[in-house]
Amino acid sequence: VSAAPPVAEVLTIGDELLSGETVDTNASWLDARLEAWGWAVHRHVTVPDDVDAIAGALREAAARARLVIASGGLGPTDDDLTLEALARALDVPLVEHAETWARIEARFARLGRVLTPNNRRQARVPRGAEVFANEAGTAPCVRAELGAASVFVVPGVPREMRHLADAVIAPRVTQPGPRLARRTLRTIGLGESRLEHELRDVVAGWPEVRFGYRTLGLENHVKLATVRPELLDPVEAAVRGVHGAAIFGRDDETLERAVVERFTRAGRTLAAAESCTGGLVASRIVDVAGASRVFVGGVVAYADTVKTRLLGVDAATISREGAVSAAVAGAMAEGARRALGADHALATTGIAGPDGGTPTKPVGLVYVALAGPDGVRVEELRLSGDRAQIRAASAAAALGLAWRMAVDSGY
Amino acid sequence: VSAAPPVAEVLTIGDELLSGETVDTNASWLDARLEAWGWAVHRHVTVPDDVDAIAGALREAAARARLVIASGGLGPTDDDLTLEALARALDVPLVEHAETWARIEARFARLGRVLTPNNRRQARVPRGAEVFANEAGTAPCVRAELGAASVFVVPGVPREMRHLADAVIAPRVTQPGPRLARRTLRTIGLGESRLEHELRDVVAGWPEVRFGYRTLGLENHVKLATVRPELLDPVEAAVRGVHGAAIFGRDDETLERAVVERFTRAGRTLAAAESCTGGLVASRIVDVAGASRVFVGGVVAYADTVKTRLLGVDAATISREGAVSAAVAGAMAEGARRALGADHALATTGIAGPDGGTPTKPVGLVYVALAGPDGVRVEELRLSGDRAQIRAASAAAALGLAWRMAVDSGY
Repeated sequence: VSAAPPVAEVLTIGDELLSGETVDTNASWLDARLEAWGWAVHRHVTVPDDVDAIAGALREAAARARLVIASGGLGPTDDDLTLEALARALDVPLVEHAETWARIEARFARLGRVLTPNNRRQARVPRGAEVFANEAGTAPCVRAELGAASVFVVPGVPREMRHLADAVIAPRVTQPGPRLARRTLRTIGLGESRLEHELRDVVAGWPEVRFGYRTLGLENHVKLATVRPELLDPVEAAVRGVHGAAIFGRDDETLERAVVERFTRAGRTLAAAESCTGGLVASRIVDVAGASRVFVGGVVAYADTVKTRLLGVDAATISREGAVSAAVAGAMAEGARRALGADHALATTGIAGPDGGTPTKPVGLVYVALAGPDGVRVEELRLSGDRAQIRAASAAAALGLAWRMAVDSGY
Repeated sequence: VSAAPPVAEVLTIGDELLSGETVDTNASWLDARLEAWGWAVHRHVTVPDDVDAIAGALREAAARARLVIASGGLGPTDDDLTLEALARALDVPLVEHAETWARIEARFARLGRVLTPNNRRQARVPRGAEVFANEAGTAPCVRAELGAASVFVVPGVPREMRHLADAVIAPRVTQPGPRLARRTLRTIGLGESRLEHELRDVVAGWPEVRFGYRTLGLENHVKLATVRPELLDPVEAAVRGVHGAAIFGRDDETLERAVVERFTRAGRTLAAAESCTGGLVASRIVDVAGASRVFVGGVVAYADTVKTRLLGVDAATISREGAVSAAVAGAMAEGARRALGADHALATTGIAGPDGGTPTKPVGLVYVALAGPDGVRVEELRLSGDRAQIRAASAAAALGLAWRMAVDSGY
């Protein structure tokens, strides 16, 4: 049995975080890192660019936690007040840190930028605080002991914050011993309730592993968490025993990456013909580094003339069945395979809305197709949501079709 | 001169908000609403699913603010503890709310779902609290007076939270009198420092308007805020007097929407030939409802064979200049215009990385082109960032090229 991890808090600072302009992504990023370093985050607080509010929040956090990471308010402008507030909380004056000032001067000279008197503010730190150079910007990372807590202050710019967290904070705060290990198993083609229901015996058999479920568009994820990392592999095997046919990836492995990996391994190529998704399938595939080994290209056949001219879809089929039909989806996939010279080709056609729906063909009716050497397969979907959600789900369904075929074909 | 708006705080509740699993989008959504209702948000606090932590945070918030909106922890499971914590903060017992229980029973009967004993928990509210029915789910919205503050508790499910905020909270808390009015002017093709520098006189001339600046990929935004909404139009006119040529839209008007609107007005059509962006240009355009009036389609010419076969790019040009070259970008645009039968066509080719860069053609070298009846225009870009950032900036540059041409042509 391991002791509970020590307690940390995250403080984010900035008017823009309290006006609806900016969603605070730094806090959740820091949470995940703190957990990996062996800490439990018990609170986030967000305060405006106000010395009293920041100083008060620092004191309160330091009274509750052993580690406080404060992000934001370190820029050169008059409303960047975090170091002044930290000095007030510590009851010490601000003093200029010669090395930081020299770094700022050198950086500006190198970039050919002109220093303003305000830049000097970035070199003033609470007396006695430890200062760490920021390789990614001008504002330094500062550490001070406030009561029983270690307080680290980092810039709010995500790139700088992330760099300093990993380079400076991690080596100084990482705890020895066990911590929560996590794994996500990503599935497609399985409803959430069935996914969860059929795992009941597995869940009951592994009391030391916490199971969670999450829906992301058409994907359903099983989230495992345990302080015993050696259990993750056997639990994953048990989950695969039930749902292996639906699991395409782990953690941050996307569906498009699973498709690109299987096609790469099998030496097969893929193309796409897109109507309602309008380039989204291609874009997701091209997002995978190394996609060029697999993906030859695609046709966004938004107008019917493009379906006939570039993909060779029979105009009579379009007028008889409608552009949104199983027949046209199949013909688009076969046409793309031929025109682009690929082993397989995906196609999408559907009504993404908000307009264009009819009683027989409502908004959300989508056909996805996959053509290959052995013929063509078409799926009909009835999707709900707004235009962007229907388009995203259509692209996911098309990628799911390619992944399923690749698995079935032993790619 | 108007009085300062009253102070509100937002409390979000849930273990998943403190583990890095979920980015808290409810807080910033509520911030924007509270501002529109005439409140100033002075703090967010996020606490875990823990009765003491929630009760303590509610008491602290109620001591600082006149309005507290708490979101999350209202579900039927054992770790949904917000109403228990509110009862503790109020020092009253939980009592069953008959009407809420009847609603839950009816809802389950209607959906054919089986009630569990846990569902009964959702009907237990602090004695004396006001209860509002939730049309979008089972957990109700609850209001209680805690010290001098009004506390509203809403579910954490964004759809339910948003519905209750607008239907229940807004009419009860909206303040009379003036409030901060905001407007964003979106520019492309202008550096942030130049944008800001050349606006100095305008900024000085309108002391009652606050100016802010924000970078979003290749776009730079001017953000205006004032308690005198009647100033927004004249200030916008003054900003346009300086930077009118770079302003493509207001507030949430995207670049692709500006392009679709101008092309629609002029009755012109557009196509796209994409290499490094791989469908992103097409996808952004198709995201605009009504894009079908303008956008005929595109070719994702990822492999060179697709550039020659579908777009008619000369293979000799590719081998002489390289696929990433101004000549190939121009030929792709002209080929797409011809093959897809559009008035204008965009093209992109570049090195998005992480591999594929050379000393003469580094990662981030991108060409965007636009072909039309009067010929072809090509721009060379040197972009930085990761693969996704380079692809996104390339797509933005292409759309910017189309927008600029449309403006210059009087579309």
